[in-house]
Amino acid sequence: MSVDKAKESAAIAAVNEHINHNVHVIGVGSGSTIIPAVKRIAEMVEKDKFDLICVPTSLQARELILSHGLKLGSLVEYQELDVAIDGADEVDEQFNCIKGGGGCQTQEKLVAICAKKFIVVADEKKWSTNLGDKWKKGVPIEVLPIAYKITKKEIEKQLGGEVIVREGAGKVGPVITDQGNFILDWKFDSSKVFNWSDVNQQLKLIPGVVETGLFINMISKAYFGNNDGNVQVKVNSAIVSA
Amino acid sequence: MSVDKAKESAAIAAVNEHINHNVHVIGVGSGSTIIPAVKRIAEMVEKDKFDLICVPTSLQARELILSHGLKLGSLVEYQELDVAIDGADEVDEQFNCIKGGGGCQTQEKLVAICAKKFIVVADEKKWSTNLGDKWKKGVPIEVLPIAYKITKKEIEKQLGGEVIVREGAGKVGPVITDQGNFILDWKFDSSKVFNWSDVNQQLKLIPGVVETGLFINMISKAYFGNNDGNVQVKVNSAIVSA
Repeated sequence: MSVDKAKESAAIAAVNEHINHNVHVIGVGSGSTIIPAVKRIAEMVEKDKFDLICVPTSLQARELILSHGLKLGSLVEYQELDVAIDGADEVDEQFNCIKGGGGCQTQEKLVAICAKKFIVVADEKKWSTNLGDKWKKGVPIEVLPIAYKITKKEIEKQLGGEVIVREGAGKVGPVITDQGNFILDWKFDSSKVFNWSDVNQQLKLIPGVVETGLFINMISKAYFGNNDGNVQVKVNSAIVSA
Repeated sequence: MSVDKAKESAAIAAVNEHINHNVHVIGVGSGSTIIPAVKRIAEMVEKDKFDLICVPTSLQARELILSHGLKLGSLVEYQELDVAIDGADEVDEQFNCIKGGGGCQTQEKLVAICAKKFIVVADEKKWSTNLGDKWKKGVPIEVLPIAYKITKKEIEKQLGGEVIVREGAGKVGPVITDQGNFILDWKFDSSKVFNWSDVNQQLKLIPGVVETGLFINMISKAYFGNNDGNVQVKVNSAIVSA
């Protein structure tokens, strides 16, 4: 069974549990795992005929919402969402996660902080003991284009490791985010022990940094699809009471 | 004697002290007080024939540099500046200041942190005991356009006061910064005592906030022009040794 099946299983399990006629406004994440999630949401809305506003975390999510005939909303209209469902690049045992492999961490974090419940869906390879055990591409950090050199220098000076200006495909030069900024990937020494909450604050306080891909203890529940199609659900007891 | 003369006196005094042939790369601030400063810098470079690179803090500053025949640089080429000269909206006795009345606080802060010395020039009305005593327009905060509603709500929730989305002239709707973002003006209760360093950190950590107009203990020297054309120089002993 493929990783795609693993992602799909996680996405469907999360949607089945969290989306229903009592839910009115949701956040729609970005990335490959969100594709089957939106498909499942559209099936439920079509079948049960309830009113659902979908707030996207990226231009990709916006297109997904529109192409499935769902209703589009924004953080300008809605600042309180019932739930947000999103992917992640790695989640550790303290429910901290790295996001932004797809470059959308800024909007993703804005949507996540507005949601009563932040639900992560992923294949099981994204679950690890410590951040960096599995995800080797570093922490994505959105920075102002004018500040990419000074933020790169400052991050390396303050935190060590190496900072790479992300390049992509489809255009030469740096990737430009949906907000018109650059992305730095901070490759840290994963043998070191970091206090991720402190690292997140330290990064965010650097002038020129717009947002980091570190999501600190924001997840309510995470759904990890296995290769056999089963789904492990991890509940963050620091947020969700039993 | 007009306030313009007061500003000009401060600007010329600062340039005379800090710009010379030993200075190679400088930051050029924004606003009305910077206009006579750039004029004076251009006169000195013309007369003494030294090589000087000018890094602007705004599109206005870039035009000023170019229109005076000075050499333009950027933070992509230069991350260490010998000195930066800029205006301010208010400076308190601890050398904290509010900047961003002209909407350029983000680039201004980036340039200031790269400078070995950050010099402020202003008319004497900008010097006060506590921030908010004289400047009544609040703290300018650059935010991502998608996040203006949620940052406004969050700032008011965390810090009280009232947050205004800045509008201007020349186009309807919100002012757009040189980085393509919005500006919120946080009007705080100036009878309250704030720890401005904490406030700055708290604001910057809010997702969607790009930068604040609070410059905490960054000034080396401040030059305040009086109505009689004299200049008071305030030296920040926490930064500058005697």
